[in-house]
Amino acid sequence: MPNPTPHDRSDQPIMSASRLELFSDAVFAISITLLALEIRPPEPSEHLGADLLGLWPQFAALVISFLLIGQVWLNHHAMFTYIKRVDRVLMVLNLLLLLNVAFLPFSTAVLAEAISTGAGDRAAAVFYGLSLAVGGVFFNAIWAYASAGHRLLGADITPAQAAVMRRRFAVGPLLYLVAALVGLVSAVASLALYAFLLVLYLAEIAAPRGDR
Amino acid sequence: MPNPTPHDRSDQPIMSASRLELFSDAVFAISITLLALEIRPPEPSEHLGADLLGLWPQFAALVISFLLIGQVWLNHHAMFTYIKRVDRVLMVLNLLLLLNVAFLPFSTAVLAEAISTGAGDRAAAVFYGLSLAVGGVFFNAIWAYASAGHRLLGADITPAQAAVMRRRFAVGPLLYLVAALVGLVSAVASLALYAFLLVLYLAEIAAPRGDR
Amino acid sequence: MPNPTPHDRSDQPIMSASRLELFSDAVFAISITLLALEIRPPEPSEHLGADLLGLWPQFAALVISFLLIGQVWLNHHAMFTYIKRVDRVLMVLNLLLLLNVAFLPFSTAVLAEAISTGAGDRAAAVFYGLSLAVGGVFFNAIWAYASAGHRLLGADITPAQAAVMRRRFAVGPLLYLVAALVGLVSAVASLALYAFLLVLYLAEIAAPRGDR
Amino acid sequence: MPNPTPHDRSDQPIMSASRLELFSDAVFAISITLLALEIRPPEPSEHLGADLLGLWPQFAALVISFLLIGQVWLNHHAMFTYIKRVDRVLMVLNLLLLLNVAFLPFSTAVLAEAISTGAGDRAAAVFYGLSLAVGGVFFNAIWAYASAGHRLLGADITPAQAAVMRRRFAVGPLLYLVAALVGLVSAVASLALYAFLLVLYLAEIAAPRGDR
Repeated sequence: MPNPTPHDRSDQPIMSASRLELFSDAVFAISITLLALEIRPPEPSEHLGADLLGLWPQFAALVISFLLIGQVWLNHHAMFTYIKRVDRVLMVLNLLLLLNVAFLPFSTAVLAEAISTGAGDRAAAVFYGLSLAVGGVFFNAIWAYASAGHRLLGADITPAQAAVMRRRFAVGPLLYLVAALVGLVSAVASLALYAFLLVLYLAEIAAPRGDR
Repeated sequence: MPNPTPHDRSDQPIMSASRLELFSDAVFAISITLLALEIRPPEPSEHLGADLLGLWPQFAALVISFLLIGQVWLNHHAMFTYIKRVDRVLMVLNLLLLLNVAFLPFSTAVLAEAISTGAGDRAAAVFYGLSLAVGGVFFNAIWAYASAGHRLLGADITPAQAAVMRRRFAVGPLLYLVAALVGLVSAVASLALYAFLLVLYLAEIAAPRGDR
Repeated sequence: MPNPTPHDRSDQPIMSASRLELFSDAVFAISITLLALEIRPPEPSEHLGADLLGLWPQFAALVISFLLIGQVWLNHHAMFTYIKRVDRVLMVLNLLLLLNVAFLPFSTAVLAEAISTGAGDRAAAVFYGLSLAVGGVFFNAIWAYASAGHRLLGADITPAQAAVMRRRFAVGPLLYLVAALVGLVSAVASLALYAFLLVLYLAEIAAPRGDR
Repeated sequence: MPNPTPHDRSDQPIMSASRLELFSDAVFAISITLLALEIRPPEPSEHLGADLLGLWPQFAALVISFLLIGQVWLNHHAMFTYIKRVDRVLMVLNLLLLLNVAFLPFSTAVLAEAISTGAGDRAAAVFYGLSLAVGGVFFNAIWAYASAGHRLLGADITPAQAAVMRRRFAVGPLLYLVAALVGLVSAVASLALYAFLLVLYLAEIAAPRGDR
């Protein structure tokens, strides 16, 4: 029975790229907003002000995870500017990335609570860094798959440009792995490293750049 | 009083199919992201690493439910590629499916916690499988209703192709029922069966297929 | 200083109606999905199956609130088919309706837990019914404001048709008030009344209707 | 290597303004709906009615935060009516605003619980007011950056009009700061001030206005 439905061939488009991106954006938006939901209000008391200040690890982890997800979202959009077709492999790789993004509020909460109490904080930092690194691997897998042989890309990007993006994206998981390793020594140092990387990223925005 | 408003006849379009699909996509996206929210961070302690490893049932159930919802979302999109009109019956059937999707984080949490503690795990596996099977029934009802007599479909699919999709979709609830029955014997075996089915599905993606 | 910005006059459009509807749809979708999140998984135990069955008030309230929100969403869409302009008053009335919708998971949880334990169940039923009635009042206020003097409507509906819709919508809060009063006597009877009204609504769908 | 990818220059558009606004709207919608989720149902008991009435600080804070977020959303939309391009600085400033919006359910819950118990309520009111003021600063930063030298604006607004909006927006954080200071004296007075400001805002809507 040749071609019973248009959805029956694994290598055929199953969805427009813009629809997949819209769904992905929704998951990014939900996950990024849920980050703050993981912070429980302290019990009201006469020293509520001090208790709120004591939540600084929660706030620091919130800011860092929020900006990290924001950056992943931005890069995800950059990828999908060039991805013109969606097949089932891409769909599954993208789902795995979204699963990772949806998981980040959990690993953020684990890290923040461990730093708060000082118990198990290094294990939590490694866990947090590894979950970021795994997300980075999925992210890279999406682009590697889509750009291999220019498989799912359009004419508005050349293979050479796609390779540049591939190399640029590959830095992410390596940095996260390093931060996870730093977490073996100190959770706060690991958190500070993320903050430093984000500041670098922000500084890069402000800095004038040549025609590189 | 003839035809007071365009929305007064039950067999008339009440909404564009694309609007209903957008709303459905939002519910899919929210529900899939809330799955991870059901996992509570363990109390910080010196053995946090071991405690996190001990959450493997939660992580396994998360991955499985996430990919299952993703697959239902994909199939839902495939259906709505061909559904061109929405009447009130379709609206209600679709709401029931969305209710089921929104319910999945709950049944996932029940299953994961029961496997974690080993108490009531078979009841939880049956409950999980039945909730999936009920969702599958709603899913099939949508397509059966929309495609009966080509009622709500357009010209880009033939009745024969619609019947092929009908048969293909019908497999879902049966598989879930089998997994629910397996849960009567062992919750972990039931979970493994879902994982196996998902791997089959993924393997099917990679495998080259003829012109069947 | 005449007309410094286009947003400075209270009776001028401040947003396209479709944008407001999109935002509203998002709130509907989130709220409807959060309903299930209010149900906490029972502690795993050997009698988990019975414990799950014991959650029937939670499940019943979930189904009823889910379908009620779905129906409000559908009616909201019907309204916005004809609303062509959005001014600040409409914006605020719509925000109040959305606040009510976002509140429904709370009142649903209050009702379900009270029926579960049998303590305070009548107060909970009245509270639930009143919160629905308040929502109905906001809903009617939107349409009354938009349709008064055909203020925000377009040419695809006549004032007479708008008046028919006005009368039809007005039934909602009255029914909810009746159900709230029934709750003074019995919470389960109140819940059953909602179920009955929903079944009536669903039956109306299936029934053939004349050219009324 | 000149211009390897279109995303490589910090001062170049990285995303359409409408896409950024859609993402922002999603975060607004999620955060506004999560406000109600922070209110926990009271334990069912024979005095449930009184317990629900005792939640008035939760309900008051919910209404106020809901309408405040709604107003910020409306102003955000007004800004993005004129913002035609998005660069990386704008992206980061907007992310910081969204972070603040996503944080509001937390500070609302802190305030409501503190007023409920009367413990630490002034610290909570200051915390709430400061979090609003910080959000107002980010909001103003977005518009100041976008409108400086008409950097990211289009032709449908003049520099003079943009300056009017700049002055109008600047009032927000100042009012929030005042309310935070009032919180140093009394949390309820601070809450009443927000209510008063909102009523003023609503009254302004109903009042006829000249051609100012």
